[in-house]
Amino acid sequence: MAAKSFEELNTCTSDAVLFTSDEPFHFVRGGQIDHVQVRYETYGTLNEAKTNAIFICHALTGDAHAAGIRQGDTKPGWWDSMIGSGKPVDTDRFFVICPNILGGCQGTTGPSSLNPATGQSYGLEFPILDMQDFVTVHRRLVAHLGIDKLLAVMGGSLGGMQVLQWALSAPQDMHAALIIAASSRLSAQNIAFSAVAREAIMRDAGFSDGHYLEKDTSPDTGLSIARMMAHITYTSEGALWNKFGRDPQNEDLTPGFGVDFAIESYLQHQAETFLDRFDALSYIYLSRVMDYFDAFSSPQASAKIAEHPIPTLVCSFTSDWRFSSSQSKRMVARLERAGVPVTYRDIDAGVGHDSFLLSIPQYEDLIRAFLNRSFEEVVR
Amino acid sequence: MAAKSFEELNTCTSDAVLFTSDEPFHFVRGGQIDHVQVRYETYGTLNEAKTNAIFICHALTGDAHAAGIRQGDTKPGWWDSMIGSGKPVDTDRFFVICPNILGGCQGTTGPSSLNPATGQSYGLEFPILDMQDFVTVHRRLVAHLGIDKLLAVMGGSLGGMQVLQWALSAPQDMHAALIIAASSRLSAQNIAFSAVAREAIMRDAGFSDGHYLEKDTSPDTGLSIARMMAHITYTSEGALWNKFGRDPQNEDLTPGFGVDFAIESYLQHQAETFLDRFDALSYIYLSRVMDYFDAFSSPQASAKIAEHPIPTLVCSFTSDWRFSSSQSKRMVARLERAGVPVTYRDIDAGVGHDSFLLSIPQYEDLIRAFLNRSFEEVVR
Repeated sequence: MAAKSFEELNTCTSDAVLFTSDEPFHFVRGGQIDHVQVRYETYGTLNEAKTNAIFICHALTGDAHAAGIRQGDTKPGWWDSMIGSGKPVDTDRFFVICPNILGGCQGTTGPSSLNPATGQSYGLEFPILDMQDFVTVHRRLVAHLGIDKLLAVMGGSLGGMQVLQWALSAPQDMHAALIIAASSRLSAQNIAFSAVAREAIMRDAGFSDGHYLEKDTSPDTGLSIARMMAHITYTSEGALWNKFGRDPQNEDLTPGFGVDFAIESYLQHQAETFLDRFDALSYIYLSRVMDYFDAFSSPQASAKIAEHPIPTLVCSFTSDWRFSSSQSKRMVARLERAGVPVTYRDIDAGVGHDSFLLSIPQYEDLIRAFLNRSFEEVVR
Repeated sequence: MAAKSFEELNTCTSDAVLFTSDEPFHFVRGGQIDHVQVRYETYGTLNEAKTNAIFICHALTGDAHAAGIRQGDTKPGWWDSMIGSGKPVDTDRFFVICPNILGGCQGTTGPSSLNPATGQSYGLEFPILDMQDFVTVHRRLVAHLGIDKLLAVMGGSLGGMQVLQWALSAPQDMHAALIIAASSRLSAQNIAFSAVAREAIMRDAGFSDGHYLEKDTSPDTGLSIARMMAHITYTSEGALWNKFGRDPQNEDLTPGFGVDFAIESYLQHQAETFLDRFDALSYIYLSRVMDYFDAFSSPQASAKIAEHPIPTLVCSFTSDWRFSSSQSKRMVARLERAGVPVTYRDIDAGVGHDSFLLSIPQYEDLIRAFLNRSFEEVVR
């Protein structure tokens, strides 16, 4: 399948809302753009006091469509098991906001957006991103919505990293933070996998130095390789074994170099559907932010949250080897050293990093109880 | 760096010996070739009774040069810590044979060898390989050397799989078997990594449908990606962290899309040196054998070794997540069920799968003691 076209990358579907910030945006690591467009969705109703808002930060390849089924779609949003009426993030009591991230490819300004200065896509001229840039855009969106203080900020994986950065840099913005399947910094192994994915994309001749949209090429091979490899790291050996084992895709194994094992077919399918919905430049820009993120590297990193400690939930999953439980425990220790009241749970789940996207009773009970406590304290 | 040329792939250096089997070779999965050339090295001296020979099977990207330093080289062979005078595989008492594997690219016939029928390299017309094909070639070499029975057959990773296959199909060929850091079958996760590597190589335009040697192209990008990814799986998160952490390659991190972290530079270097010494077709042919290998899949698999049980050493490493200890334990259980006397050790080592190539005292003591017992029983 072909990668998304320029038009697709810059078109907003009917259910999402666009917010355009016309204040010039200065990137932490240098560079600026004059307008930032943010695509976001909301679920539930904002109460009059504007105290019931929960802000959702999505993961590397997520988007604004977190919950519900859009007209014409068959699949619900990426966190539909978590967000909705009667669900842990209960839209009967909470107002939920989920934007596409800065640098993304689902309606928010990113490297494949139009650069007004050139009339072409930004490509690799788009400024290098930092975790704090995401937070700055999120804060502008919250201000635009007229909300003084969020009830909670919540996210998994790269989303959890955004929550951590936000909580450290502006804890006064939220009553509570939920950091799920995340890390305060990537391990050397994490960076290594990230580097291989980036190489696969950037060394694909179809990448055309980042101007594939204008040149009508596409780094489909590189992006497919990156996605297949990443997908292995999102799951666990046990989960792959339970689901596929060494089963043939068809009746019998027929040795050769084609797709023969069921696991191979599954990976191919993952890659194909990914090409339809994701952009190679967004992939390298967003994954690179994770490589450089090191939340507690400065001695002053915890100063603000130490002055303004907020209830924080940290949650990991036992079989997650991409962002392992030990990475969450390190985060917990750093937060507790700053005086933050942390609820930590290592959920027994077998499907690896992607566990955070699944419906797991103990996990859902945990989120529900944590959010309801905030609701009782703040809203009721 | 450029991939190896046709001449380089088919030239034998002075220290190695060539054996050409002129008996037509029938592949297990179909196809035949008229001549098989095998490049091998030997170390130590064969005793008069020809009872002190140890046969070494190499891993996926190994070669015949297991020990010693060749003239003009600076680096010793790939298992030099294990093989030599006074070393665990002591060349003062043992005669050691190490051939390049069938399908390889270091002097033994493989897919980049000349196909006499076409005057070109075989490319993808080379027959699909099976673990038993390796064993058949190894047995021809042993017969050629006039050895009736090997003292031991020994190998790590894919080498260990060859040992297992050989021990199951012709246990009478050896007094003892040593299976190190191996598995009787790949897990779904193993196959998944293998599939991504193969895709990276075969979808590289430079692969030219397997005829890159004639077309003067080279799948350098694909082979680099495959090697970098594989290398991550050969080591452990802990080892990468201890060696590189999040250190910059130069003085400071300078965010961008180039090589910046030390771990990135290391992976690049691994890929570059690999291109110099390895061939893309060999990579996909040999790795595909591993995907299909399932030693105990047939109910009759253990029948021969049950009739002819031989002392077998199985050795795994605690931090090896590519061929985990549980995979070795499964092998041990299957062998013991067939009545094989198995010595099993899970060596406490931190560097992952590649531990089997390193000098680790407990590991070396284990190998030395096991081989010396065979020596005492058979040779002395």
